[in-house]
Amino acid sequence: MIQTDILIIGAGPTGLFTVFEAGLLKLRCHLIDALPQPGGQCSELYPKKPIYDIPGLPEILAGDLTKNLLEQGKQFQPGFTLGERAETIEKQEDGSFIVTTNKGTKHQAPIIAIAGGLGSFEPRKPLIENITNYEDKGVSYFIKDPEVYRNKRVVISGGGDSALDWCVFLADIASEVTLIHRRNEFRGALDSVERVQELKLIGKINLITPAEVVDIHGDDHVEAITVKKGDKNIHLETDYFIPLFGLSPKLGPIGDWGLEIEKNAIKVDTLDYQTNIPGIFAIGDVNTYEGKLKLILCGFHEATLMCQSAYKILNPGKKFVLKYTTVSGINGFDGSRKESPKAVVKAIV
Amino acid sequence: MIQTDILIIGAGPTGLFTVFEAGLLKLRCHLIDALPQPGGQCSELYPKKPIYDIPGLPEILAGDLTKNLLEQGKQFQPGFTLGERAETIEKQEDGSFIVTTNKGTKHQAPIIAIAGGLGSFEPRKPLIENITNYEDKGVSYFIKDPEVYRNKRVVISGGGDSALDWCVFLADIASEVTLIHRRNEFRGALDSVERVQELKLIGKINLITPAEVVDIHGDDHVEAITVKKGDKNIHLETDYFIPLFGLSPKLGPIGDWGLEIEKNAIKVDTLDYQTNIPGIFAIGDVNTYEGKLKLILCGFHEATLMCQSAYKILNPGKKFVLKYTTVSGINGFDGSRKESPKAVVKAIV
Repeated sequence: MIQTDILIIGAGPTGLFTVFEAGLLKLRCHLIDALPQPGGQCSELYPKKPIYDIPGLPEILAGDLTKNLLEQGKQFQPGFTLGERAETIEKQEDGSFIVTTNKGTKHQAPIIAIAGGLGSFEPRKPLIENITNYEDKGVSYFIKDPEVYRNKRVVISGGGDSALDWCVFLADIASEVTLIHRRNEFRGALDSVERVQELKLIGKINLITPAEVVDIHGDDHVEAITVKKGDKNIHLETDYFIPLFGLSPKLGPIGDWGLEIEKNAIKVDTLDYQTNIPGIFAIGDVNTYEGKLKLILCGFHEATLMCQSAYKILNPGKKFVLKYTTVSGINGFDGSRKESPKAVVKAIV
Repeated sequence: MIQTDILIIGAGPTGLFTVFEAGLLKLRCHLIDALPQPGGQCSELYPKKPIYDIPGLPEILAGDLTKNLLEQGKQFQPGFTLGERAETIEKQEDGSFIVTTNKGTKHQAPIIAIAGGLGSFEPRKPLIENITNYEDKGVSYFIKDPEVYRNKRVVISGGGDSALDWCVFLADIASEVTLIHRRNEFRGALDSVERVQELKLIGKINLITPAEVVDIHGDDHVEAITVKKGDKNIHLETDYFIPLFGLSPKLGPIGDWGLEIEKNAIKVDTLDYQTNIPGIFAIGDVNTYEGKLKLILCGFHEATLMCQSAYKILNPGKKFVLKYTTVSGINGFDGSRKESPKAVVKAIV
């Protein structure tokens, strides 16, 4: 059982910044995310796109924002359960909660912060009848650890940035990379499209277009697929089949936790972004209140106020004094210390 | 008369970010600040100190945060009235407000955003009986434009960073720089203290310590001062006398505008940070509400929500659709356009 002070569901920007604000209050955090890496949408959907409305950052790529937020929180040593979706919640007699993921990992914490964004991102799956039989047995909808594919044969299908970029990346790792797309045209960043074109010309990527994967074969693991191109069926041997058809957000199991839901979002008060269940907070795009704006900068504010209430719940009766980081510096849980250079008192003679 | 959509009182981080959020909604801003430069406390009190709790910026010097915020808003061409304090407000028949500064500059706007921080920073003045007679006639408590002092004789008094740093800066501009402090010891950044020491040794700065300025002489302008050192009085000819004894924040004239005040801050609701006077908002450290935290990141959120309400007031009945900067880009009032590189649709053959 993983135990922490604040269990954060969702490792997007709001969840990541919570680690920092909680850390200033000496509270520990653990994050669960269905995606295989932290950053939420910023990492998964648009890592190379610029965001212009993060205050103090006139322009930052979404992927770099994630890196900065990880850096900002790292001295507070957050824990991560990645690639697993928070599934059930149970309230314990001592007031704490146990959250179990779809893979059975259990987490216990007195405070839950749902920072689930638009919901957990569920992959759009191709309509292949037997595909679920091969999930985690050669079929993946995300690439978690590219090393898995070293010296293996990989088929990727899809026509967007994600398919293009992973083909380029795996061309150097896998023994064979095949890209299948139902059209000849791809839609993505110009340099991604051009790079795939080059790799195709030198034979590092096989391209089959316009075509679709219609069947999967293998006993215990993917061994081959059937590709339909025009009216021909092609039998193609492969070790892995990775359809990258995009993600669609779903509020998912959180919707069944007894929380008050309005327009697919969780209702909170604006005092501290607490839900109708005491001890469970909802921050960032996943929550709603009068005047709510789904902006990252609002999530940062909500996370900060939420941490204050978490502190009071966990330290009843203890008086909390807000300290400014510029004045007090930052003491990391890892023993690190950041602080402003001190003024000296010195005679000039 | 200066006219604008949102008149922002206070050009600290919250005020500056308001320019950006208002600009996204095609609203124009003008800022008034009692300090001679934008940035509020960040520029005036601790420009070289790091801030650790701006989300997405693990460490940024306060002065650089100001620069970034100015950069972020510059395409929305904010106006500035600097070095003047907002003094009076009058509501007009058409619902707009006229704000007049202590120097008589008049500004008209339908929306007022008070982003006044801890208040306007009033300089601590030395106890010299006739000093007010010489204000702006050789006595200044701020340095607005260093060029004023080119080839002039300047006396600075004070023992902190501000006094030290301006002595160093003016040593290359003024014909003569004298630093007077009531102690031998100075309190400041190590390199500032050392630099003054060096400049003193090579005769670029005259130092008189421990000593105090006790009298000012001159007909229409400062011509000389009397410095008391021990029981000796020294007569020192000079063109300028600049006491830099620090600033203390005062809510000041805003306190008399009929706004509901609580603990030296302006009460607002948390829907849109509007005060008890419709059309007047208060954002950032100057406001208060249940759970309020005086943090820059909270000011950013408050500014953003405030701009939404300002938009609705200025565009009654018009439906507003929130657009993400990553998706829609930014159209500056100066004709500039920032946008994410577009995806291409291209065949790979």
